[in-house]
Amino acid sequence: MTVSTKTRAFQLTEFDYHKISQAPVELGEVGHHDVLVEMKAASLNYRDFLISQGYYNPNLKLPLVPLSDGAGIVTKVGDKVKRFKEGDLVSSTFFQDWCSGSISQAAASSALGGEIGGVLQAERIFPEHGLVKAPAGYTAEQAATLPCAALTAWNALFEAGNLKPGDKVLVLGTGGVSIFALQLAKAAGATVFATSSSDDKLKRVKELGADYVINYKEILDWEKPVLEATDGVGVDYVVEVGGAGTVEKSIKAVRYGGHISMIGVLSGMGGVDPIKLLMKAIRLQGIFVGSREMFENMNAALAANEIKPIIEKTFSVEQVAEAIDYMKAGKHFGKIVLKF
Amino acid sequence: MTVSTKTRAFQLTEFDYHKISQAPVELGEVGHHDVLVEMKAASLNYRDFLISQGYYNPNLKLPLVPLSDGAGIVTKVGDKVKRFKEGDLVSSTFFQDWCSGSISQAAASSALGGEIGGVLQAERIFPEHGLVKAPAGYTAEQAATLPCAALTAWNALFEAGNLKPGDKVLVLGTGGVSIFALQLAKAAGATVFATSSSDDKLKRVKELGADYVINYKEILDWEKPVLEATDGVGVDYVVEVGGAGTVEKSIKAVRYGGHISMIGVLSGMGGVDPIKLLMKAIRLQGIFVGSREMFENMNAALAANEIKPIIEKTFSVEQVAEAIDYMKAGKHFGKIVLKF
Amino acid sequence: MTVSTKTRAFQLTEFDYHKISQAPVELGEVGHHDVLVEMKAASLNYRDFLISQGYYNPNLKLPLVPLSDGAGIVTKVGDKVKRFKEGDLVSSTFFQDWCSGSISQAAASSALGGEIGGVLQAERIFPEHGLVKAPAGYTAEQAATLPCAALTAWNALFEAGNLKPGDKVLVLGTGGVSIFALQLAKAAGATVFATSSSDDKLKRVKELGADYVINYKEILDWEKPVLEATDGVGVDYVVEVGGAGTVEKSIKAVRYGGHISMIGVLSGMGGVDPIKLLMKAIRLQGIFVGSREMFENMNAALAANEIKPIIEKTFSVEQVAEAIDYMKAGKHFGKIVLKF
Amino acid sequence: MTVSTKTRAFQLTEFDYHKISQAPVELGEVGHHDVLVEMKAASLNYRDFLISQGYYNPNLKLPLVPLSDGAGIVTKVGDKVKRFKEGDLVSSTFFQDWCSGSISQAAASSALGGEIGGVLQAERIFPEHGLVKAPAGYTAEQAATLPCAALTAWNALFEAGNLKPGDKVLVLGTGGVSIFALQLAKAAGATVFATSSSDDKLKRVKELGADYVINYKEILDWEKPVLEATDGVGVDYVVEVGGAGTVEKSIKAVRYGGHISMIGVLSGMGGVDPIKLLMKAIRLQGIFVGSREMFENMNAALAANEIKPIIEKTFSVEQVAEAIDYMKAGKHFGKIVLKF
Repeated sequence: MTVSTKTRAFQLTEFDYHKISQAPVELGEVGHHDVLVEMKAASLNYRDFLISQGYYNPNLKLPLVPLSDGAGIVTKVGDKVKRFKEGDLVSSTFFQDWCSGSISQAAASSALGGEIGGVLQAERIFPEHGLVKAPAGYTAEQAATLPCAALTAWNALFEAGNLKPGDKVLVLGTGGVSIFALQLAKAAGATVFATSSSDDKLKRVKELGADYVINYKEILDWEKPVLEATDGVGVDYVVEVGGAGTVEKSIKAVRYGGHISMIGVLSGMGGVDPIKLLMKAIRLQGIFVGSREMFENMNAALAANEIKPIIEKTFSVEQVAEAIDYMKAGKHFGKIVLKF
Repeated sequence: MTVSTKTRAFQLTEFDYHKISQAPVELGEVGHHDVLVEMKAASLNYRDFLISQGYYNPNLKLPLVPLSDGAGIVTKVGDKVKRFKEGDLVSSTFFQDWCSGSISQAAASSALGGEIGGVLQAERIFPEHGLVKAPAGYTAEQAATLPCAALTAWNALFEAGNLKPGDKVLVLGTGGVSIFALQLAKAAGATVFATSSSDDKLKRVKELGADYVINYKEILDWEKPVLEATDGVGVDYVVEVGGAGTVEKSIKAVRYGGHISMIGVLSGMGGVDPIKLLMKAIRLQGIFVGSREMFENMNAALAANEIKPIIEKTFSVEQVAEAIDYMKAGKHFGKIVLKF
Repeated sequence: MTVSTKTRAFQLTEFDYHKISQAPVELGEVGHHDVLVEMKAASLNYRDFLISQGYYNPNLKLPLVPLSDGAGIVTKVGDKVKRFKEGDLVSSTFFQDWCSGSISQAAASSALGGEIGGVLQAERIFPEHGLVKAPAGYTAEQAATLPCAALTAWNALFEAGNLKPGDKVLVLGTGGVSIFALQLAKAAGATVFATSSSDDKLKRVKELGADYVINYKEILDWEKPVLEATDGVGVDYVVEVGGAGTVEKSIKAVRYGGHISMIGVLSGMGGVDPIKLLMKAIRLQGIFVGSREMFENMNAALAANEIKPIIEKTFSVEQVAEAIDYMKAGKHFGKIVLKF
Repeated sequence: MTVSTKTRAFQLTEFDYHKISQAPVELGEVGHHDVLVEMKAASLNYRDFLISQGYYNPNLKLPLVPLSDGAGIVTKVGDKVKRFKEGDLVSSTFFQDWCSGSISQAAASSALGGEIGGVLQAERIFPEHGLVKAPAGYTAEQAATLPCAALTAWNALFEAGNLKPGDKVLVLGTGGVSIFALQLAKAAGATVFATSSSDDKLKRVKELGADYVINYKEILDWEKPVLEATDGVGVDYVVEVGGAGTVEKSIKAVRYGGHISMIGVLSGMGGVDPIKLLMKAIRLQGIFVGSREMFENMNAALAANEIKPIIEKTFSVEQVAEAIDYMKAGKHFGKIVLKF
């Protein structure tokens, strides 16, 4: 089965995202188990900035089609494909080869827009196992926000974690993972504590359901109001996205036997004192996105609870550098989307 | 520490609940680890009927103070009691000696209103470990509905089970356990299927959040609409309270690898065909109420989600026989409460 | 990549295993993700008898290459195959499409020698994901015994179950699953109770490490010595392979909160009384073989503990009907193997 | 019930273990739920050194009866005690109030020989819930080694962890926790890697079953042979007892998705880089001894597998300071015991 052999792609040719350029790339052949997708949207994660500057891995092979998170419409399926048909709206999975079960080194080496080419191209062939159907009622822009940030939040709380109604969850800041964690935790009947440096953003997280909000610029020891509001016990889960000195406070804010998810690749996180982990019997769990099965579980939750991603701003794919600039500024609330 | 040595109690003196009679009983001494409670309310479970007629265990020692589920106000605490103080509104735990961890035969032999005397007396001494604080904002009548039915539902879904947002839950009928399961599953972001023989009751479960309702008098093969609504896959959890032939249908309605909780002691449940369990890799889990730790987890969930028990009708404690008659008729929706 | 297009196969052409006949079948093409295996051995399971007589599913499409369990040597690999190379000794997976994670209906419909053609052919192409490497030090005959019986035992105890050292396990009879369960449980530091109708076989299970053995022909109430030896508590796990009236006794022999695995498709198992499950909070878990990831976990355990399968008797593949006769007689101890 | 009101105790009166002195202390009254134990042996943990010097908590109230780990013979039981009778050999639980379920701050504040008085006295009253029966066949000296080190190892591998046969475990050094972890992991069918700075000790761990041994004085990058022996994958579990720079190496030596237990209060452990946790999806689990239910599970495992503690040296209780000196020297292998 042969298809148009060239497609329009964006490429990182040197480690400078301002120089991402368009070029026709070979599309390849739609194999028995493959799916051709007309990409409609992509979303940004902080990792995309790190990769594009060579900070993430200076040895990545260039040129590279960037970005891990994409969504589009299925336009052709291989003859052995069972889970998709033409016209389906699909999202890419972050790790193309992590279907279910435990993560492995091989699975962890199959991330889009890094170890393998990403989604910023007009058409792209995926193996059937590297796609999921978008939640019912989602647009392509919405579906494009899910693969990395939403799934990371879901994994932290419901797969590596085991969040129950009535559990208390602390989310830090208002980036993509934190906002998804807030939305998902509220849908699950949890009580949510959220922090931000901006009262405006805190107002918005309250509207999304946060039960307690803390301006960490005003209250530097933000673990204290958390402890007060929990009778000195602390929260059950922290979704720790990093930042200078936050882990130390998270350890204070979590209960004995509690669960801290280590997420994100922000700089300046600092070291963790293992004695404190031990003395509170804390679980510090590295979360590296998640598997396709987890993604499907999450999509069921998003659809059933009519959760829609918070999209801060939408750019055109041609504005990819501008969009990364915007993300780098760190003032956004939720996700930044690129539209084909 | 000595207190009034006699208190007014209701007693089953022969296996006929119509002959439950009042008598003064010895109250005993409030030991170091004990708590004296002025009982304010109790609630009925079907087990109370079975016990009072000798159907549950014809060898139970009489006279017996009946009923497992009670709530009241703490009026005195032993000098080593840490978790309660005078004035606290508390519920009794069904198993007085199952604090946490796995169930044991010893723990299973400490049920109130059966192996040991129950809650239908004006004042009662409990060991500190046999009580929990009522959820914030609860009345005594509400707190009295929780120990057996609510905790059974909670255990089925969140302790033996591991319900996630987006999971699908099937509840059968509108008894206490089923209604609590519906309320808790909705709070946890699940999709709920409910059955009843009455359109009026189905209307009420819909108001409580049920997503799909089925009148099993009209649709005898009620597993079929469940399968249709789930693309032929079936639900993740069934809260199976028994009744003629329901298990067979529940096995059809649950997904491969799904979870059926066996609950309640209704007659006529029939046998389970193990071949069908095997071929769908189903888990059939006997649920026998739960531990105090589970009760505390549940109370956090009830408070955080502002779930209030559905009380069908409230009687005075003197009307206990009348209340059991009412329950036996099987037309109620939710819980039946007795008030001191 | 084209290979010899015909291979010698055994086929069930009508539901009578005495008429399994040899025929050349189309081998097909070794696709990108495919592996060509020269089959060296196969093993029998009771399911093979049921299938070949039409008892398992009278609607199975014939002709059918029978048998799910096979092992052989890799002779060619597709260009995208990563996990295998020529010369590897491999076993087939029972469910070709259950790689890891939860079972699904689709996965459960991919069983060799049933829904899809089996392993009784000289050469066979498998998808890469439908094979596992044999444990180090295994012969092909040994590797052929693992896909169904061993994996079922492993799943029951270590995947659906969570066996710890010091746990008590009851295995019934001396068929393939029971012997593997005994060997694996002993390797894991458990205490094992085993039953048989033959003192000779009990002597052999003792040699394999069983701590307590019971002749159920002599002691009809075999649950009683189990309870006595456990201070009245009962065992933690029962590996229940069925047979008239055994489930009822297994429920008596298991502890409160214990775990009974429902395994195998023997007739006459009888119904399970759900009230008894409830009153002891028992988990009755249907076990349907297992996933490839579980298979790989098991193989690590077999290799590390130098567990070798107990092979009762080896036939040539041409003697397949004779071998099934032998299995049907039910006097064997461990596995029956066919050799190419 | 009144008993001899004074007993001979050892007391820390200032933060200097060389000045631990004998004094008669009030024994108290054996309450309804209490058990009087004639202490026969105690064992040392590094925490005892830290406490006795004020390093652990300079605000501990003195005088303090030191040591958390003891064993003795029951000589009297309160009238409501069910689990013990006179003559039983029992061990104390490290946390007197952590019976089962999750750890809480209250439970974590009930450690013997720290928050509350320890076991170094001739007779001592314990609440029934603060004792466990010794494993069958144990001496008092052996039973005294279990409460802290053995239970920590058990919890790491089988309660917080979920060790299966065939899993790979790395233990560091030859202190009490590490040796117990080695013995328990081998009993569970795991493959064990062990490190030491001494070839003599490595010979001894090999005799105890270690599969791979590494002299970390000779091979500074000891993670490398671990990776080589696991085909570059790494181990499933690390029992990390601390020491300069070990965590960093442990992170390299553990597999993607692996489990590192943080144990012990050795100095110089250094910080943990959270990015590395994240990128391998590692779980870093603080282990703080364990509950009584875990202790009972462990004792079943010890008895069933006939595991006996490795006791390096036995002192008399009067030699407590000398024994701590000996422990401090850090040359021991296994446990140091004090005998009454």
